[in-house]
Amino acid sequence: MIDAQAFFQPRGVAVFGSMSPGKLGAILVGRLLEGGYSQVYAVNPKGRGFAAAPGFSSVSEIGQPLDLALIAAPAVAAPAIIRDCGAVGIRAAVIISSGFSEARQPLLEEELKQAAAEAGVRYIGPNCSGLINTRFNLYPTLEAAPPSGSLSLVSQSGAMGGLICDLAGPAGVGIAKFISFGNGSDINELDLLDYLKGDDETRIVAVYAEHLGEGRRFMDIVSQISREKPVIVIKSGRTAAGQRAALSHTGSLAGADEVYTQALATAGALRADSVAQLLDMTKALSHSKPLTGGRLAIITNSGGPGVMAADSVEGNGLVLPEPSEAAQAALGRILPAHAGLANPIDLTVEGSPRQYRDALLAMLAETDAALAIYIGTPYLAALPYAEAIAEAAAVSGKPVAAHFAVGADIDSAGAYLEAAGCPCFESGERAVLALSRRRRYEQMRQAPPWRPPLIKEQQLPPYPGYILEPQVMDMLAEQGLPTLPRRFVQKRAQLAQAAAELGYPLAIKVVSPNIIHKSDMGGVKLGIADLPAAEQAYDELQAMAAELDFRGVMLYPMQNPGQELIIGFIRDPQFGPVIMCGLGGVYAEIMRDVALRVAPVDETAALAMLGELRAWPLLQGARGGPALDVAAVAGLISRFSHIPCMYPQLREGEINPLFVYREGAVIADARLLGE
Amino acid sequence: MIDAQAFFQPRGVAVFGSMSPGKLGAILVGRLLEGGYSQVYAVNPKGRGFAAAPGFSSVSEIGQPLDLALIAAPAVAAPAIIRDCGAVGIRAAVIISSGFSEARQPLLEEELKQAAAEAGVRYIGPNCSGLINTRFNLYPTLEAAPPSGSLSLVSQSGAMGGLICDLAGPAGVGIAKFISFGNGSDINELDLLDYLKGDDETRIVAVYAEHLGEGRRFMDIVSQISREKPVIVIKSGRTAAGQRAALSHTGSLAGADEVYTQALATAGALRADSVAQLLDMTKALSHSKPLTGGRLAIITNSGGPGVMAADSVEGNGLVLPEPSEAAQAALGRILPAHAGLANPIDLTVEGSPRQYRDALLAMLAETDAALAIYIGTPYLAALPYAEAIAEAAAVSGKPVAAHFAVGADIDSAGAYLEAAGCPCFESGERAVLALSRRRRYEQMRQAPPWRPPLIKEQQLPPYPGYILEPQVMDMLAEQGLPTLPRRFVQKRAQLAQAAAELGYPLAIKVVSPNIIHKSDMGGVKLGIADLPAAEQAYDELQAMAAELDFRGVMLYPMQNPGQELIIGFIRDPQFGPVIMCGLGGVYAEIMRDVALRVAPVDETAALAMLGELRAWPLLQGARGGPALDVAAVAGLISRFSHIPCMYPQLREGEINPLFVYREGAVIADARLLGE
Repeated sequence: MIDAQAFFQPRGVAVFGSMSPGKLGAILVGRLLEGGYSQVYAVNPKGRGFAAAPGFSSVSEIGQPLDLALIAAPAVAAPAIIRDCGAVGIRAAVIISSGFSEARQPLLEEELKQAAAEAGVRYIGPNCSGLINTRFNLYPTLEAAPPSGSLSLVSQSGAMGGLICDLAGPAGVGIAKFISFGNGSDINELDLLDYLKGDDETRIVAVYAEHLGEGRRFMDIVSQISREKPVIVIKSGRTAAGQRAALSHTGSLAGADEVYTQALATAGALRADSVAQLLDMTKALSHSKPLTGGRLAIITNSGGPGVMAADSVEGNGLVLPEPSEAAQAALGRILPAHAGLANPIDLTVEGSPRQYRDALLAMLAETDAALAIYIGTPYLAALPYAEAIAEAAAVSGKPVAAHFAVGADIDSAGAYLEAAGCPCFESGERAVLALSRRRRYEQMRQAPPWRPPLIKEQQLPPYPGYILEPQVMDMLAEQGLPTLPRRFVQKRAQLAQAAAELGYPLAIKVVSPNIIHKSDMGGVKLGIADLPAAEQAYDELQAMAAELDFRGVMLYPMQNPGQELIIGFIRDPQFGPVIMCGLGGVYAEIMRDVALRVAPVDETAALAMLGELRAWPLLQGARGGPALDVAAVAGLISRFSHIPCMYPQLREGEINPLFVYREGAVIADARLLGE
Repeated sequence: MIDAQAFFQPRGVAVFGSMSPGKLGAILVGRLLEGGYSQVYAVNPKGRGFAAAPGFSSVSEIGQPLDLALIAAPAVAAPAIIRDCGAVGIRAAVIISSGFSEARQPLLEEELKQAAAEAGVRYIGPNCSGLINTRFNLYPTLEAAPPSGSLSLVSQSGAMGGLICDLAGPAGVGIAKFISFGNGSDINELDLLDYLKGDDETRIVAVYAEHLGEGRRFMDIVSQISREKPVIVIKSGRTAAGQRAALSHTGSLAGADEVYTQALATAGALRADSVAQLLDMTKALSHSKPLTGGRLAIITNSGGPGVMAADSVEGNGLVLPEPSEAAQAALGRILPAHAGLANPIDLTVEGSPRQYRDALLAMLAETDAALAIYIGTPYLAALPYAEAIAEAAAVSGKPVAAHFAVGADIDSAGAYLEAAGCPCFESGERAVLALSRRRRYEQMRQAPPWRPPLIKEQQLPPYPGYILEPQVMDMLAEQGLPTLPRRFVQKRAQLAQAAAELGYPLAIKVVSPNIIHKSDMGGVKLGIADLPAAEQAYDELQAMAAELDFRGVMLYPMQNPGQELIIGFIRDPQFGPVIMCGLGGVYAEIMRDVALRVAPVDETAALAMLGELRAWPLLQGARGGPALDVAAVAGLISRFSHIPCMYPQLREGEINPLFVYREGAVIADARLLGE
């Protein structure tokens, strides 16, 4: 746990760096003084002060209580400064200086890390842009000073943090704390999130990251926070080739960004695609009331913007219910005879404040939220409309968002609405999106938190580089997965008895550590009807694999093919084992119709994965086929998803195909690859 | 052609409506006078004037040259007013009054239409919000007065037009003309587009519409305009059930909004999803130079925003090429040793104006456009960076867009850039999107314009409600489509000879006007090997259809099944015949993998449709299958797409399945439905 008081409410601050006007050190001192901090001391070789802050040539000369060091000195000086700080009892430092690992100087960063460890100093940075605590007017940063509020932001990129701080005010969003963690070589995003979890000033947490080093720990802490307060994440680097994980065969179907999407959703974070979206969501989460359902009413005085907003409802988990007969009757008394009683409700350009209020009340009696759209003219006052809408929101007790545009007093109308708890958005579409995320957050926090799996790791049984099919099948069977009866025949002489035990017809497959794609090589013989055929198959397979370390053959009884599914796992560099499923044949590979989750998953999550497939209707019996045993498949996905967690040495694995029937399912082939 | 001078530069204007302060008539008079118009006359029963405009109780009393009538009087008075206007020689009217068909008073609108036709008056409206011509300070509207510029806007929704006019200024976009056409019962969007095509003040055309009554005429005029100037369309009502066309079986796979998307693309329009996007595209199209290719360089001083912008390149037709060796050498001389030489190029927070300029020049030497991202701090001036970037743009002669944020002088830096022809956007992502649309426009205008098909319409041969299979196959064969040899056997006695002519084995299908889905009813018998089997099949089919108007059976030779495709057409209410294709079986129906176009299409467009299918790799021989004869399929799609154009009585049609082989393709079954 970081020393919050030292970082966010320091009693004395030593600022290291040049105090020449315009230089970073001087700017930092200036900003601390502007914020009302008087215990600010400049430290630099010349012992030069700045403004009201006295200068010293060494931190040891200050002789006053000091909590925090702000380091803007050249990178090479940082390790020594950290040691000096430790010597005078400073336990917290923010290192803004750059020139470390990001500038190809990893040794200097290592030296810094070691110096800090030895001196007992925890630091944020280096190569960061500082921090902000609006509550105590603490702005040791180059970034803009945002208005005070409830959003705290942890950002890998200083510029992105500065941009958000700069845009927050105009967007009507206030900031509690901002921390740029830069290289994060000591205190990183996980430590900061852990701190913000318990920080009372912080009601909403936002994260900007391009990369998450420890995916599962991030999911764990986010999952804990998101039960108490919303977490919004911008994860960029969605498409850059360098950010793409090297995923295997089935993994490449989805792409690593989809892993992030699923991991963030599993942890209960809301993912934002842009700064504007992050601020919109923050607004909906801080200004408006929770949505207890997804039923939305739209009241507008202009058809066009109403239609645009309605278009954005689809696919966002909200619905626009038509008014009930009771509501229609109430609306009929309020609205002119020719007004349509559909949702959106168009009051037309003649809509009065009273009509807005009454129409909102009539609709909110049976919906969970409302969006009020008002497009005025430059000649008319919008405030009476804002007042009427706020009144309806207060009376109904339900969340109401607004899109207000064009009007003599449009800014004050917007401010009135926001002060009354009705957030205003730049368009109806953006309002709908923000409300939908507020709704999603409420739904998500009902779910039990995600916890990193507590699975006892096991050593993989010894295997010759590539795990042979008999061993793969035994491992799957051990986990309770439905395998076929089988015999591993290593000598031709054993063939007759093994075949007789299983019964004809048989499938016979070659076993070799050098043959992965057996079918492509002609290593699978099907419909073997009797012993002579079995012996011929054995001989052919042995001949085929003569130079490929032939180990024998696997015998299986022939199986009626069912609907084919593929279930696979890969090891994501950030999130570890990821489980995926899709229909076999062309569906997964060509049509790219796959669903994935961070492993392991329970049966509920596995069923949700199946439901996400575009091909889902085929499992339910579309086109005259039978309804298949999806419960069995879900159980099987769940059990298979535990295997990579148990055996960390497994790099990837695949059941391909799984035959699924009306009742039950069985593994027709599978492979597991070790490291 | 509308009388442009009367509408957009009228010599004298008569304003009908109440002149009480705050009333619409008075506001309109006020806005005309503000714009410098002196020949403004108020007409109302009281003969009351407003401000400098004298009042009259009848338009006939004015006795001055009059070009335009502005009507804000009650709807019921409008027909008489129009007649009075015609009597004094006014030939143009803008009817702002509402209370016509939109208020369930279609008869009043019909009366208005007739009065105007008789009086020789052309009108815009009713139920519109007026028009704007910034060039002559003409603002007979309630909407905001935007800055003058090159964008002209035609909007069905007055409020949406008002919103765009209101947001244009802050977004850095100027308006030439704005026309709200409301109910459009006389002059509609087509007339207005036809006018704007030849209007020299208009360099970019924008349309807001919820509905396009005459889709093909709209495509025709847009296609003509878009060779000369860009056309941007917001088409809303994308999801509302009421907007959805009643599409048949295969048509419902895509949804009518996809028809709009394809129709607009075919006509060469750029589709915008929001007002913000429309303004961004306008900016890219009016401020920056054309992109002659899709290669984009991103130069930034902050990693995060650079990564966000890079993420938005994918899927938008642009690429971020890595610098060549020559460019790397040039960049190496400019940038600090640790800077990455990848694209985006991150100058880091220390990037100087000179580095921006030199890095831009190095990259622009081998790319088609650049995006410069600058995120400053509130303490530093951004203008030197703007100057350096504008210099690089001027020297290179290539389009450069910018995202500038945070800085002591950020607004003037942005203004400097825009004045220098480098448009600034609210985020890097929005800049990339806008540049990509500028590129798309340049690509599109190279293509030949779309013209409404010149196909001689023919009368459908007489048919009994539902077109019988023998006739369907004859019609397809007549169009040169590959049908199978066949015999239509209406009497059991003819069976033997017909079967012998075709040769066994045969497929036999029932023919009945009451059986559409033959297979589902057991109306198809396959693999008929000899005459007794054929006779048995005939008897069974006759018995099955005994109560269903049995007409006989069709005989076909059995065919090796190929890859199955579906090719269908439907009749879209806005755009008429729409052709679509997809793979058979589950692909089209369950996986919703279909491509569509407004019919007819040529072979190039048909091939593009096939290429859009997710299943396209299957046609090219993925997964070990053969490469199929896509050229034959494209030809066949093209020929089939002419059929609904030839026979306007055909409501829908479907080839299902088409068997496609390595060489050639053949129609295995087809149906055509008349009205």
